[in-house]
Amino acid sequence: MQFSVLVEVTLRPGVADPQGATIERSLPALGFTEVRGVTVGKAIRFTIEAAGEDAARARVAELCERFLTNPVIEDARIELHEVAAAR
Amino acid sequence: MQFSVLVEVTLRPGVADPQGATIERSLPALGFTEVRGVTVGKAIRFTIEAAGEDAARARVAELCERFLTNPVIEDARIELHEVAAAR
Repeated sequence: MQFSVLVEVTLRPGVADPQGATIERSLPALGFTEVRGVTVGKAIRFTIEAAGEDAARARVAELCERFLTNPVIEDARIELHEVAAAR
Repeated sequence: MQFSVLVEVTLRPGVADPQGATIERSLPALGFTEVRGVTVGKAIRFTIEAAGEDAARARVAELCERFLTNPVIEDARIELHEVAAAR
């Protein structure tokens, strides 16, 4: 089975986010006074082959922990959907 | 009303994605042979005040087009949820 995966990598609470802070500071001068709490993270997408959803999720979690994130400063949120098989 | 927003910024099809390509090229040597089609984009989160969901969505679309993305090479996907009001 093939799964489409989105990994959202965000900075952990307390870690400085200069990109988000810069955007937030600039917006009022640009006319967007109603926006608060801007944070910038990464959105990594890919497809993975696995026997089932649980296997896919476990494998993606391992991938995140080992290569896609720095667990000291980043958190990962995993979103996963089965892709209809090609016939 | 307050809305929690996720903007996923991705490179448009055909635009080179060196981060994604590097990750994809490295994974087989690291034991992940079942991963394909890696792309790396940005995940921008914030909250916005608006009169309703349609107004919030329109305002976020304007924000994306004017400041958060480069529409020549990037696409934006907007996800939006109402936040329960504080009492």
